[in-house]
Order: sequence, then C-alpha cells, then structure tokens
Amino acid sequence: MTPSSPPDLAQRIASLPSPPERAFASDNAAGAHPAVIDAIVAANTGHALAYGADPWTAEFEDRCADLFGRPVGAYLVWNGTGANVMALASALGPADCVVCTEWSHIAVDEAGAPERILGAKLLPLPSADAKLVPEQLEALAHLQGVEHHAQPAVVSLTQCTELGTVYSADEIAALCATAHRMGMVVHLDGARLANACAALGGTRQALRSFTVDAGVDLISFGGTKNGLLGGEAVIVLNPALGRRAKFIRKMVNQLPSKMRFVAAQFNALLEGDVWLANAAHANAMATALYDGVAGLDGVRVGAPPAANSVFPCLPDWAIAPLREWCFFWDWDHAIHQVRWMTAWDTTSDDVSAFLAGVRHLVC
Amino acid sequence: MTPSSPPDLAQRIASLPSPPERAFASDNAAGAHPAVIDAIVAANTGHALAYGADPWTAEFEDRCADLFGRPVGAYLVWNGTGANVMALASALGPADCVVCTEWSHIAVDEAGAPERILGAKLLPLPSADAKLVPEQLEALAHLQGVEHHAQPAVVSLTQCTELGTVYSADEIAALCATAHRMGMVVHLDGARLANACAALGGTRQALRSFTVDAGVDLISFGGTKNGLLGGEAVIVLNPALGRRAKFIRKMVNQLPSKMRFVAAQFNALLEGDVWLANAAHANAMATALYDGVAGLDGVRVGAPPAANSVFPCLPDWAIAPLREWCFFWDWDHAIHQVRWMTAWDTTSDDVSAFLAGVRHLVC
Amino acid sequence: MTPSSPPDLAQRIASLPSPPERAFASDNAAGAHPAVIDAIVAANTGHALAYGADPWTAEFEDRCADLFGRPVGAYLVWNGTGANVMALASALGPADCVVCTEWSHIAVDEAGAPERILGAKLLPLPSADAKLVPEQLEALAHLQGVEHHAQPAVVSLTQCTELGTVYSADEIAALCATAHRMGMVVHLDGARLANACAALGGTRQALRSFTVDAGVDLISFGGTKNGLLGGEAVIVLNPALGRRAKFIRKMVNQLPSKMRFVAAQFNALLEGDVWLANAAHANAMATALYDGVAGLDGVRVGAPPAANSVFPCLPDWAIAPLREWCFFWDWDHAIHQVRWMTAWDTTSDDVSAFLAGVRHLVC
Amino acid sequence: MTPSSPPDLAQRIASLPSPPERAFASDNAAGAHPAVIDAIVAANTGHALAYGADPWTAEFEDRCADLFGRPVGAYLVWNGTGANVMALASALGPADCVVCTEWSHIAVDEAGAPERILGAKLLPLPSADAKLVPEQLEALAHLQGVEHHAQPAVVSLTQCTELGTVYSADEIAALCATAHRMGMVVHLDGARLANACAALGGTRQALRSFTVDAGVDLISFGGTKNGLLGGEAVIVLNPALGRRAKFIRKMVNQLPSKMRFVAAQFNALLEGDVWLANAAHANAMATALYDGVAGLDGVRVGAPPAANSVFPCLPDWAIAPLREWCFFWDWDHAIHQVRWMTAWDTTSDDVSAFLAGVRHLVC
Repeated sequence: MTPSSPPDLAQRIASLPSPPERAFASDNAAGAHPAVIDAIVAANTGHALAYGADPWTAEFEDRCADLFGRPVGAYLVWNGTGANVMALASALGPADCVVCTEWSHIAVDEAGAPERILGAKLLPLPSADAKLVPEQLEALAHLQGVEHHAQPAVVSLTQCTELGTVYSADEIAALCATAHRMGMVVHLDGARLANACAALGGTRQALRSFTVDAGVDLISFGGTKNGLLGGEAVIVLNPALGRRAKFIRKMVNQLPSKMRFVAAQFNALLEGDVWLANAAHANAMATALYDGVAGLDGVRVGAPPAANSVFPCLPDWAIAPLREWCFFWDWDHAIHQVRWMTAWDTTSDDVSAFLAGVRHLVC
Repeated sequence: MTPSSPPDLAQRIASLPSPPERAFASDNAAGAHPAVIDAIVAANTGHALAYGADPWTAEFEDRCADLFGRPVGAYLVWNGTGANVMALASALGPADCVVCTEWSHIAVDEAGAPERILGAKLLPLPSADAKLVPEQLEALAHLQGVEHHAQPAVVSLTQCTELGTVYSADEIAALCATAHRMGMVVHLDGARLANACAALGGTRQALRSFTVDAGVDLISFGGTKNGLLGGEAVIVLNPALGRRAKFIRKMVNQLPSKMRFVAAQFNALLEGDVWLANAAHANAMATALYDGVAGLDGVRVGAPPAANSVFPCLPDWAIAPLREWCFFWDWDHAIHQVRWMTAWDTTSDDVSAFLAGVRHLVC
Repeated sequence: MTPSSPPDLAQRIASLPSPPERAFASDNAAGAHPAVIDAIVAANTGHALAYGADPWTAEFEDRCADLFGRPVGAYLVWNGTGANVMALASALGPADCVVCTEWSHIAVDEAGAPERILGAKLLPLPSADAKLVPEQLEALAHLQGVEHHAQPAVVSLTQCTELGTVYSADEIAALCATAHRMGMVVHLDGARLANACAALGGTRQALRSFTVDAGVDLISFGGTKNGLLGGEAVIVLNPALGRRAKFIRKMVNQLPSKMRFVAAQFNALLEGDVWLANAAHANAMATALYDGVAGLDGVRVGAPPAANSVFPCLPDWAIAPLREWCFFWDWDHAIHQVRWMTAWDTTSDDVSAFLAGVRHLVC
Repeated sequence: MTPSSPPDLAQRIASLPSPPERAFASDNAAGAHPAVIDAIVAANTGHALAYGADPWTAEFEDRCADLFGRPVGAYLVWNGTGANVMALASALGPADCVVCTEWSHIAVDEAGAPERILGAKLLPLPSADAKLVPEQLEALAHLQGVEHHAQPAVVSLTQCTELGTVYSADEIAALCATAHRMGMVVHLDGARLANACAALGGTRQALRSFTVDAGVDLISFGGTKNGLLGGEAVIVLNPALGRRAKFIRKMVNQLPSKMRFVAAQFNALLEGDVWLANAAHANAMATALYDGVAGLDGVRVGAPPAANSVFPCLPDWAIAPLREWCFFWDWDHAIHQVRWMTAWDTTSDDVSAFLAGVRHLVC
C-alpha cells in the first residue's frame, strides 16, 4: 500500500529551499571539463590531415598503450552506441549472437542499433544486479554447434553496470576464462569505465586488473560521461580482433573527420589522470547522496553505491514535486524507484542542497 | 606521352620557396571557425539535459525553420556518412534502392555503410560531371513494379558534387519533378551545401531555390567542412518522411548525448550567415588558384571551379615533389590529375605562396 | 532425487518389442501426403511461366480467398523461417521491434535470421505456456515514443505454440485489440496452423474465428508439417501490409521459380480440406499417446495435449534406451523432459507399439 | 531507322502455323525431369529425420565428393538467390564488397537480397560479354587498405553468364589466380553450371577443369533450371570457407526441413550424369535455333550460342505478334533484342515449329 501524501504537501512544496545548481539527471547532462575545452582551443591551430593522420591522434594512441601497459588498438569514435556496435562488429561472424544482461544498454537503450547494424541477435539473460556469472555462460553450451540457434560468440559486460554495480577484477577474469574456454570473446561496455576503475582502486593498475589482465578482448572506453563534450574510443586488446577495425569504424558511421578534436579532448583527461579524479569525485558525491538519504523515513535505498548512481524508492506523492524542483529520471515506476546520478562536476553544495530539499519534502 | 622531367629538377626542388601555411588537402583539414570555438566555450555552462532537450538545440531548430522559410525537421548528427544514412533510412522501404552517380560519396567513400545499415542497394549511374539528369531517372522505369529488381525509391544528389560541379536550381527542380512523378523522393547530400549555395548566389533565397523550392525532400546539411569542429544535420523538408526520424537517428549511431555542443557550433555559423561567408571565401580562393594555373605551361585544367576545388593535370614528374612541399591528394592517377581544395580559412597568401611554388617547379 | 535405474534394465532393453514403424521425432520427419505427390505428378506437364504466372498459383490464390472468406494476399514461399521473415518484413519500419515469447521459433530456432534479414530487434517476453496476454503488451507502453528504445510494432504469436498449446479465438482477438489500440499489428506464426484449427473445431469457420475475424494482420501458413514435401505461404489479411509483399518475398530469398509445384501441393491439401483431416488425425494421435502414458508410474505429464505434441518427464535412465529404440528429441534436459510429436501419417499401430515399449521399459 | 511493317502483316499473323508445344521463355518454365519425379515418389517412404539427417542427403554429399574428385562441403538449399547469398555470406567480413559484372544476377535480378542479407556492397563492373578479366580485378587494388572504401573480398563470376557466354577453364583459372594474389576468393554463380559444363566438354573432367582445378572457392550449383522441380546447392571447395556454412544456411532462410526430397531430386540427375545430358541437349537446341535464324533477312544475331540462349534482334513490328504466338521475353528494348531460351525438354519439333513461325512472319 502506498502511503498517502501528507496534509501539508502543498505548503511543503511552496517552501522548498533553493534547488542545487546542478541536478542529478545524468552524467551526460554535465558539461565539459575545463581542460577539455582548453585542449580544443589549443588544437584549433592551422590545418591537420583528417581521419586521424594528425599528431593529436598519434598521441592518443600512445597514451592508450601506456594506460593499458602494452600495445593496443585505439580507435576514436563519436558516441557510446557507436563504440559498442563497432566493437561487437569486430568480433561477430554470420549467425553469431551477443550474450548480455536484460539491463544492458545495447539491448535496451540503443533503439535496435546493434541488431540493425550488426545483423545479429542479442541474447539478454536475466540478472538481479545487471551482472553475469560464469554459470550463465555455461548454460548456453547446448546452443553451440546446433544450426537452428544463433551461436554465442561475444559476451558483452557493462562495467560499471546500468544498475550502478561494479564487477570485481576476479569476477571479470572468471567470466573471461569461461567465455574463452567456450570459444567466445569478451567485450566491456565501459561508458562509465572510469567510474568502475575509481571504484576498484582508482589507479591504472586497477584498470588493468579488470581489463587486460582479466582477459577482456575489447572495450568501449567512455569519455563523454567523464567530462568530454563528445567522444569515446574502442580499445582492442585482442589483436586478432583488430585487423578489420578501421574499416568497421567507417562502416558504422563512426569515423570523425577532424579527429584531432576528439583526440585532444581525450588526451586532456588522460594527462595527469584527470579521468580518474573526475570519476572518483562523481562516485564520492553519489556516496554522499546515499548517506544523506539512507536513514530517512519513507525513503528506501539498497546497498551503498559502488559508483555514481543511487536508485532510491520514494513515496509516490513526493516524486513529481521533487523532480519539478530538481530534475531526475524515473527508474521503475511500479515500485516508485528513481535514479539520481552524479557527475564529474557535482559539488558537495549540490548534494547538500538536494538533500535539504528531500528532507524538507519527504520527512 | 608523358613529358620527361626537366634536367634541373633537383635544383628546382631544392630552391622551392616557403610553402603556404595551409595546404590544399581538403576542407576537412581546416580547423574550427573562431565563432564556433567561442560558442562551445559559452555553451559549457552548468548542466543541460542530454539528447537535445536543451535551449541550444531548440535554437538550432528555430534557426533552420528560419533558414528554409518554413517548419522543417532538423536533426543534429555527428558526421556526413551518418547524416546520409539517416536521411536515406527515412525514405527507404524493404527492397528499395537508392539512385546516385558513380562518383557519389555514398557509393564510393562510405565503406559500404549505406548497404550495411540500410540493407539496401545503391544504383550508381555513370556521369561525366557527377550530376544526374532527368532522362537517367526515366530510363529506370523498366525496373519499377518488377519483383526481381530492387525498386528505385530515392534519388540522392550531391550538391556541390564530388567533382566540384554545382546543380542549378532548375536542374534540381527538374530532377525532383521527374523523381516525384515516378514515385521517388530526392535526397541532397550537402556535405558542401554551403559552397553550392555560395556558388548560386550566396543568399538564403538561393538556398531555398535549389532545396525547398525545387522540391527536395531531405538534406544532409554539412557543417564540418564549413568550419565546425564536428557536426552535421539532417533536414527533413517532406514531413511525411520525418515521422520516424528521431528513432532512426538513434538506430544509426548518430544521436549526440551532449547535443548542446553540436547545436551551439551550428548556431554560431548560422548567426549572421557566417556559413555563407565561409563558403564564399573558400570558393573565391579556389577561383584564385584556378586563375593562377590556368595559363601555365604543362598544367591542364578544365572549366573554372564552381565551388572550392580544382582538379588540374600536372606533369607526372612534378606531382610527388610538389606534394612533398605542400600536401594534396591524387585524383586520377592515370591522367596525372590531382585535387586542390580550399577551405574557409585558406588565405590569399596561401594561394599566392602555392602558386609561386607551382610556377617555380613546373614552368 | 532421480530414481535409480531398475536392476533388470539391460534385460528390459534387450527384450523391447518391435518399435513402431514411424517414430515421434517431429511432424517434419513425415513424408508427403499421397495427394500431394499426385498433384506434383499432374503439374509436371509441359511449360509454365515461372514465379507464379501459372494456373496452379492462380488457383491457390483463389482457394485462399475462399478459405478466409474474403480477398487476401497469398504468397507461396519455401519454408517457415522464410515465411516468418517475409511476413515480419512487411510490417516493420526502421527502429521497430517484434514482440514475441521467449519460446518463439523466431527468437530461438531461426539462427538469427530475423535479426539479420529484418535488421530488427526481437523482444521475447517470458511465458509459462508460450502464449502472450494483453497485459504484457500494455506493459510495453513505456517504450513507445522514446527514441532510445526500439519501437514495438509487430506482435508475433505462434499458433499452435512451440509448447503445443493453442490460443482460443477470444484470446487472439483480445491480443489483436490491444495491439491495434497501441499501434501495433499482429502476425501469426502458423507453422502448425492446421493443428490449431483442428483443436479449435476443425472447420474453416474455426480458422476464420481466430485469424481474420480476430483481427490478425499477417499469417505464416504452414504446409510442410501438414503433409507437403515443402512449401509454406504468407497470408496478408491487412491489405495495407501487402503493397510491398512481392518485392519482399524476392528480397528474402523466398520466391520459388517453378512455383506451380508449390502451388499444386497446397491445392491438393486444400481440396476437400485434407489439411484439416491431416491435422485432426495428428492431434488425435497425440491424445492417444498422452492417454497411454498419463497413468504410468514414473512418467509425469501435464495437461492433455491441445494439438500434436506431448512433453512428458521420464525417468532419467529410461530416456537414452527408449530413444535408441524409437527416436524422439529432448526438450528440457534439467527435468528429464522430452518431446513426442505426432504427424499426419502417425498410425494407431505406431502409438500402440510405442506405448508398449514405454510400458515395457519404464514400469 | 526501323523498317516499317509489311503491308500484309495482319494476314501473316492470321496464317501463322501452330505454335510449338513448348515456348522459349526460360529454362525455369520447363517442368521436372521424369527421373526427378520418380525419385521424389521413391523417397516418400515413411519417416526420415529433418534438416539433412537422412540417407538421401548423405548420398548427395557423397555424390558431390565424387563429382568434384575430392571432399567438398555440399549444402542443399531452396533457390538460386538463396544459394548465392549463402555462398557470399560464407566469404564476406564486415566492410567487404563483392566484385561482379553489371549483368550479374546478384546485382540485377535479386531485388537487393544480397545487400539486405549480406549487409554488403556489390561492385558491378562494366562488361560487354558479361565476363570479367583479371585486369579489372587488378584495377581495384587502389581500394584495398583504404578505410573509406568497401574492401573487395569476393569475385563472383556467373558460369554460364547472363548473356549466355561461357568462361573457359583458363579464363577462370587466371581470374582465380589474380583474385587469390590480391587476397580475394572466387564464387561461381552456377545457376546454369550444367550448361557451361556441357559447353566445355560435357564431362566431369570438364567440370573440374573450370571449378576445383581452376581454383574456384565456392559454387552455387544450379538444379532447378536443369530439371529439378526446385533445388540448388552450395558447394564449398575451399574448406576455410565452410566452417560456418551450416549456420549461415539456416540464417539465410535456406535450410529445407524435409531435405530428403531435395536430395533425392539432385541424386536422380547426378546418377548417370543425366544433368549433363539435359544440359547438352538444351545447348544443342539453342544452336539449332540460332542456325535456323542466322541467315534470315531482318534478323540480326551475334556469335553462335555457347550455351542455351539466343539473343536476336528482330524487326520491331514482329516482336509483339511473335510473342503472342509463342512467348519469350524482351532483352534490350532499345535495339529490339529479345531472348530465346531452350530447356532440357525442348524438342527438335519445338525448334522447327518456332522457326517456321519466325520465317512465316518475318521473311
């Protein structure tokens, strides 16, 4: 039963304090990091050959090799859906399919781009926490070799997941081992890879532990949600999958012509590991948000956030006025669950102001 | 017979003057216009909802309605291939095909993206000047209604063309009339729409004359080559083709999340018609380049450039050293033809310096 | 806990009676009905224009109009996967998706053909009995109009289902009403449409009650499992979906050139409603099979079969020897469930002989 | 200038002799060879597992190994478009394209099925005789390795061609050598492979000379036009291309369920090389047809037919009445060219009767 709204609701709404300067809609509502803007300005100097034949892109490729501790294929692209489609296209043959969770961005939030562009089936498996376990892969063995079934060929994990959970390095290593033993490869949808890395130690060593050291084959390396104005990358760790990468990038609409401007943005965040600082900060803000509501009457929250999102259940009557005051998205309407997401530029003041409003309205 | 190289070639090369600051490789080798950079900096202020629910995008949509003199669908996308694929997907049904020329970017330079993402055939027709004529469409009538043939459904014209030629408004109107009479719609690949507009009068009225007034249904409206750091738009003039546009944009990997930064760039060029000034300048620089070589011994050029490219034939021995001195691309190796392309930022000094080098080397 | 095998298992196996002449593997293990063979022989007379411009195809089209009680589009194709893909392609726009159950043949048993050829997502919903209910469609409303999600456009029902259950006419009418209200159309995968019709009354009126009268838009009308040597049809009940059908058939590899031989087969089964007699017989044989094992110790069966398949759970130790004696397929290995399927040519003797073997081995 | 019709045309038409029993529309207007019908009847005996797990299919596979003189992949499919798409899908990676002629069936007559199902570009090259030469492949070298261009990966030759011409074994060997050297593989669209084989000697040794010995990688082996009621096969000569074949067959809608009936038909034609006799006879009938019109006033024919089609140019006024009397298809309307095609069942009487009518009308 839904608790009824308080008799003084109208008054509570009218007397809400000033909302925070930045809302909690999404990390892609944030702008660009100042270093990114500076890098764009600096890169706007004279002519540079298009499509990556420029020094900024070469620098980006070097920085990626450095980041992962070995030579990798590093391909700049426009956006997350594009990165995912490009990575998956590099690993799929005809009649293959992609194993993912029912929450995965590729299955739910990409308007069928994967099926359309890959011409391949996605096989979304159920998961309470948006993570897969090796047993789920093993249970697909009966599909293998049977001509009536699309053949599982790629396991696509999201790190951190669409539910804000984070795979440990060991969990990913176990999934990679199972996938490889079964003849599959592993793709990491890392639209928020930085937040996962921050959650797992916040160092380059941590990044390697759950990617290259764990056996991951391909990564969609997110930049936009971490402070770029726009740009992602596909990282090919398994060289066998990189031979057609440059052609595939063009084929999936993802080859930036003035590539120096995408490269320069990424370089700005990789320099001095601003990307990790950005992510660690966003994660910390989510923890602060969580801590501020965890004890409140009428608000239900689950486990503390692993990364930069909180998924509280609020009193039904509180959601609309709270959103009108400071925007956020619904998550699961049936249980009055919403999503609050922090970004690289969320401030402690934003969190405090928001929590003040929540308490004012709900308690 | 190819003329042999002059005996003093080595000396000529060694004594080449200083090359121009900017080469003539392509208009996508240019950087971004200062107003574009300023607009990005100005747009980087706090949070804004993603995917176009922001004031900059709303402004862009208003500006497009204003530009075309009536309500239009205006969809920001990442790049030219993406714009073309999105536009064509809006107009194609199953078993349809796209009529274009053998020179068309969609057929030659997009790595099969159209066929892959559209699942449709391209039907490239021969053309000496990269332009189609109505008779070529009429000659396709025998395909219509026959189940063995992909059905011509969209005519894709490039304006200005890949050979630097420009359709007149009347020519496009005639093609639209024929296409419509045959049940087809017309798409304009306008990666260099601004240069075409500049060539045809350089006013908004001119733009309308060869687009909305001529009966064009869909446009890929180029921004990158005109001075953006990255961004194009799909303009839907025929409302019947716009109903699925927003879904299609997402499906073809072309929905920018922090869309304000694409919108702000475009707005900067549309404000005060900087886009037309940029294009007119680039065109003028190509004319200057043409005029400077038209009379030279050993250099063959065709008709004066309609837009911003020159396709001269040079002595075979001159191409490599000239390119090493100041970069440009080959066009047709068999006839020693190269392409020189000007950009919004090409200066008269660039042209003079380049011509000086050409004369020094060739004459 | 699995019951252990009986001490005299080896002896039981050795003394199994003669197996039935026909096994229970599938209805596509059966041959062709004699009337079908006769029709092929009769149609093999001189020349006839290819691709359906022949009298046998015209007759088939007339027979379909007669069968459904009004003009319909009737398109002969090769096989079930092809019929499904053709039907769905007729109803899908870009970024659309197909709603089905997790058991559906299109989602599970077609090797990704729908995703590949349609370039569209399938949205498989959970279902205990392989049937959908209107509430499941209504729950998809939140996807509609949101550009990040593939848009539900077609509901594909299987009749009878992959689990051998049958929708009532009212159930299908309710699903059609909901689907149409939400802007979707309804496809019936009727690889075993005849068995469903037999289960629902076994008359042409029954067929109309759950198809044309219920609001179904498109049907894959199965012939192969009903006694053809090979051939299916796509029936377009909603004329708006038929305009591109002939082009689509060719585009999905499904246009038979010597079409008279497919038409003649179908005509033979439609004449005198042999198709319904075949299906009623197959259904009756499944009921006999069910009745014969329903009371047996160690055999668990669910509800009586609605159509022509039985899904019993057997003692684990019995499955392999029983299969070796008379072939059938596993269904759910985890619960020792198998599938026994009858066909138009299964005889009472086949059933008796099989039941004798089951009793001999298991009891 | 077109010659005007004779003053007595009406009278000539009225007094035309009896038309031949069989017209010259196409070899797919013919019925099935009696041995094929007999084989179907014989195969219709009891149950057999579906999808090729039956003795007839095993026999077909053995017969193919025997035919080509070594182990091959032999995959039965429904029709020619399906065979071509399946074969090409086995050899294409993402961003690859298929090189063919402008006359090729895959480019002209398959309603875009290749582009749709393969998601790949076709690159049709000009050709006067519908044959490619190695120099045309070599001229594509500039596309290789450049990310903007779809990558030539498969050369698809039609044997015999759509214009009735036939590649010699040496010509195919030279094309294979060039293709392989450039990293491409070679596909033979052999919808009329038998007619080509008959033209090149009419023995199994001849077949091998222009296929397996010449270096061909994949064949679409036509059956329907050679006397089956319906059925083709994909022959994989290059084992590296066969690993995914069975999955691809299902994915492209081409897996027959009651496969024994397709296998039995093929086996009937392969037994005693009926397939070669059928083809040799059809070719001989085309030669007779050619010889009968070669000298006629008002009829222009080119070189004698290599296989089973003649492409004469007739007086414009003669075409419609002649077609009404005995059907055939137009070929090139602009030059009043038509196509007369013979089949396995064309008789000398058919040819004589037809020639009598032509002479009566035209001379």
